[in-house]
Amino acid sequence: MPGKAVVIALGGNAILQHRETGTAEEQSANVRRASRQIAAIAAGGYGVVITHGNGPQVGDILLKNEIAKDILPPMPLDVCGAESQGMIGYLLQQSMQEVLLAAGVDCPVATVLTQTLVEGNDPAFGRPEKPIGPYYTAMQARKLQEEQGWRMVQIPGQGYRRVVPSPRPIGLVEEEAIVRLFSAGAVVIAAGGGGVPVVAGPGGILRGVEAVVDKDYTAALLAQLVGADDLLILTDVERVALNYGRPGQQEIHEMTVAEAREHLAAGQFPPGSMGPKIEAAIGFLESGGERATIASLEQASSALAGQAGTRICR
Amino acid sequence: MPGKAVVIALGGNAILQHRETGTAEEQSANVRRASRQIAAIAAGGYGVVITHGNGPQVGDILLKNEIAKDILPPMPLDVCGAESQGMIGYLLQQSMQEVLLAAGVDCPVATVLTQTLVEGNDPAFGRPEKPIGPYYTAMQARKLQEEQGWRMVQIPGQGYRRVVPSPRPIGLVEEEAIVRLFSAGAVVIAAGGGGVPVVAGPGGILRGVEAVVDKDYTAALLAQLVGADDLLILTDVERVALNYGRPGQQEIHEMTVAEAREHLAAGQFPPGSMGPKIEAAIGFLESGGERATIASLEQASSALAGQAGTRICR
Repeated sequence: MPGKAVVIALGGNAILQHRETGTAEEQSANVRRASRQIAAIAAGGYGVVITHGNGPQVGDILLKNEIAKDILPPMPLDVCGAESQGMIGYLLQQSMQEVLLAAGVDCPVATVLTQTLVEGNDPAFGRPEKPIGPYYTAMQARKLQEEQGWRMVQIPGQGYRRVVPSPRPIGLVEEEAIVRLFSAGAVVIAAGGGGVPVVAGPGGILRGVEAVVDKDYTAALLAQLVGADDLLILTDVERVALNYGRPGQQEIHEMTVAEAREHLAAGQFPPGSMGPKIEAAIGFLESGGERATIASLEQASSALAGQAGTRICR
Repeated sequence: MPGKAVVIALGGNAILQHRETGTAEEQSANVRRASRQIAAIAAGGYGVVITHGNGPQVGDILLKNEIAKDILPPMPLDVCGAESQGMIGYLLQQSMQEVLLAAGVDCPVATVLTQTLVEGNDPAFGRPEKPIGPYYTAMQARKLQEEQGWRMVQIPGQGYRRVVPSPRPIGLVEEEAIVRLFSAGAVVIAAGGGGVPVVAGPGGILRGVEAVVDKDYTAALLAQLVGADDLLILTDVERVALNYGRPGQQEIHEMTVAEAREHLAAGQFPPGSMGPKIEAAIGFLESGGERATIASLEQASSALAGQAGTRICR
């Protein structure tokens, strides 16, 4: 087992950017960029667990299902999420194997297909608000609402989208496999897209649910699980900022959990964006983690060394 | 580590049958049927590695990509194969967890996303003959042949299909993870669809190739890798037969490797069907395996006990 351990959470946009069309070549190139940063971290003596978002990828899979639905039965969200774990895990593990080899780091890389346990009575099930998949017209949206029971919301200027609940993760079904491989020195890719959310029914029987677990919360859980020293959340911006996108914007280099809580309470970190990252960082630190760092992908390796990004400490 | 070890190869049709439409519900129900057989085997004291075909599933994924191709870039075959590993692995691991729990067998289940190493100079690359994906008209086929460089073949009465090479597997990139989890007592699901075929380029860099590895050959390799006593190949028929589908059809209960070779040489086991299973069985036995059994899914557990199916011994 390596000296220090880090769980790295890659944003879905680190693998497929908004302006891109979504070819396998684009995604491979982006994944390779991410892998080089991660390999530098592994070469620095860190044991690494990687988790990643899947928004753009599962969106494309859902849209393909939608377009083909008169010919082939569309798969439910949990199955599409599992497909996206296969797809991204494959690109990521192949690329990691390549860059580790080039960096002279001899360790296996493996993707563990992960189910994330959520509670059936999580209040999130009462208020679905995470938008997923394609945009629809008002008429399509009404039809889907009636026929499929989907909850649809209007996105101003862009149409209607399905929203699903985003419950909190309470455990990882495959935790034993993840911990075992990590302890054996492997770079483990796990819980892509936050993991496929499942609830435990009578007798512990698991069932997939049509929901999305925020990958940052799952990353914090993973970090706790493997006893990580560091949680590194990679995103589109270089640092967390106060008054983000407003006059008086101010980047934060370092803050304590207490300060982070204060800014969170003051509404500085909005729910669909920086909020979950800050909450995940707080959760990780309060469960015993040493450092949580939020940074851009390009600065991942220097951020972990404390030379970039925003560091949150106890 | 359990007493005896078996690698079980599930046919793709065990998970999605020809007459079915391909909904997630149908596939879940089929997977549960398979899982019950496998749980009985695990309950009998066997350590279990599961591998599975993906023909119908990757076919559906390819067709969805094809139908949506004017809107979203289609993924290449290797990426679609990885998606199918995610999809089937998820259904299978969830179902296995359920039936093992019900059977009182306490062991983790995990899917390891697997890349299968093939040789770039495998003669199969010179003669693509494995049909994959949707059927096309003659005009579409000509266009795909010209624009994509795909090799197309005419299937009498049904149209044209793409054919890809089917190289032999020479190694599993994720073998260390698979062996480690298996040795730790987990039921491991690995190398779905034969694994995503990759070739090693200069410096050991892996690249996915548009090919399909026969899952039975990969199963034999997996069995060798984990030091399995048994290789159990599950298919649509109850037993291997001589003169299959012809006058004088005769089921085989047991045969030696020498007998199997003889029948193979006599053309009794055609390439696209029973041939690879027999060859995989022979390969496994010659690499030190104890028993290879070919049987129907419904009789899996009794076949492994020698009460059904066709057994091949050294």
